[in-house]
Amino acid sequence: MRHLAASIVALLAATWALSLPFPAATAADIVAAPTGVTIPKGYRNWQVVAPSQRDDKDEIRMILGNNIAMRALRAKQLPFPDGAILAKLAWKRVKSAEFDNTFVPGEPQRIEFMVKDAKRYAPTGGWGFGRFIDGKPADEAAHATCFPCHQVNVKNHDFVFTRYAP
Amino acid sequence: MRHLAASIVALLAATWALSLPFPAATAADIVAAPTGVTIPKGYRNWQVVAPSQRDDKDEIRMILGNNIAMRALRAKQLPFPDGAILAKLAWKRVKSAEFDNTFVPGEPQRIEFMVKDAKRYAPTGGWGFGRFIDGKPADEAAHATCFPCHQVNVKNHDFVFTRYAP
Repeated sequence: MRHLAASIVALLAATWALSLPFPAATAADIVAAPTGVTIPKGYRNWQVVAPSQRDDKDEIRMILGNNIAMRALRAKQLPFPDGAILAKLAWKRVKSAEFDNTFVPGEPQRIEFMVKDAKRYAPTGGWGFGRFIDGKPADEAAHATCFPCHQVNVKNHDFVFTRYAP
Repeated sequence: MRHLAASIVALLAATWALSLPFPAATAADIVAAPTGVTIPKGYRNWQVVAPSQRDDKDEIRMILGNNIAMRALRAKQLPFPDGAILAKLAWKRVKSAEFDNTFVPGEPQRIEFMVKDAKRYAPTGGWGFGRFIDGKPADEAAHATCFPCHQVNVKNHDFVFTRYAP
C-alpha cells in the first residue's frame, strides 16, 4: 500500500513537472552565488563606468552599472544607494590580427557583480558579491576573497575600485 | 551715408545676437568635423561594443554603439544600416594607485565617431568619420587618414574594426 501511494505521488509529480513550460530554464535562471547574488537580467545592456586592464592575468575588462549605480557615480554620491549594481566583465587580452600594437577581448573569463543592499549585506560593506564563470557561480571559498580585498584598498570609495571615466 | 547704414546694420545685428538665449552654446553644439560629422547627443550613455587597448599610444579605449549599431552587431548584420553610429573613447592608460598590475583610464585623449550614411558618405565606404579633441574637431588632414586605414584592414567587416564582445 505504501509503495502504491508513493508511486502515485511520484507519477503525479512527474506529470506536473512535464506540464510546466520550461522547468529546467527557470531553475538555471535563478542559480545564485553562495552570497545569494544572481546574474541580473540585461546587465550586458547597461552603461559603462570604465574599461580596465590587468597585466598579471593578461585580461581586458569593462565595468558596467545599472541606472541606480550610474546616477550615483555621476552625482559622486557615496555610499551607493540600495539597488545599485556594478558588473565586471573580463576577457583574455588578445592581439588584434588587424591592427598593430592593439589588444582586444578574447575568451570571456568571468562576470562579477556587486549588489548594494546595506541591510542584507551589512557584514561585507553593504555589498553582495557574485562571481560567475561560464554562467555558473564560483564556490564559497572564492567569494570569501572578494570583500577583504575591496575593504583594504577602497574603503574610502564605498569599497568600489572603478571610477567613472568621462 | 554708406557708413551710417553699415553702422545701423551692425547695431541691429548685435542687438539681435544679444537677445538670443544661448547663442554661443548653440554654435558650440553644432561644431562639425570637416566631414560634417558632429558629436551625437548622449553618446556616453550608449551600450558597449567592446573595450580595447593600444600599446604604442599607451591608451585604453572603449567602443560604444547607438541602438541601430548594437542591433546590427548582435544580429551580425553587414553592412551596417544607415543611422548606425559607433563611438570610440580613448584615455591615457595609467597605473591604478589602488591595485597592483592594473591599469585604468587617465586623461581623455579624443573621441571619434563613425556615422553610417551609405549615400552621403559613399566615397568613404558609407561612413562619415569624426575626430574630436577636447570637444573640438580635428582638421581635414587628420580626417583624411581615417578611411584609408579602415579600408586596408577591415574591408570585410564593413570597415569596422571592433567586434561585439559578449
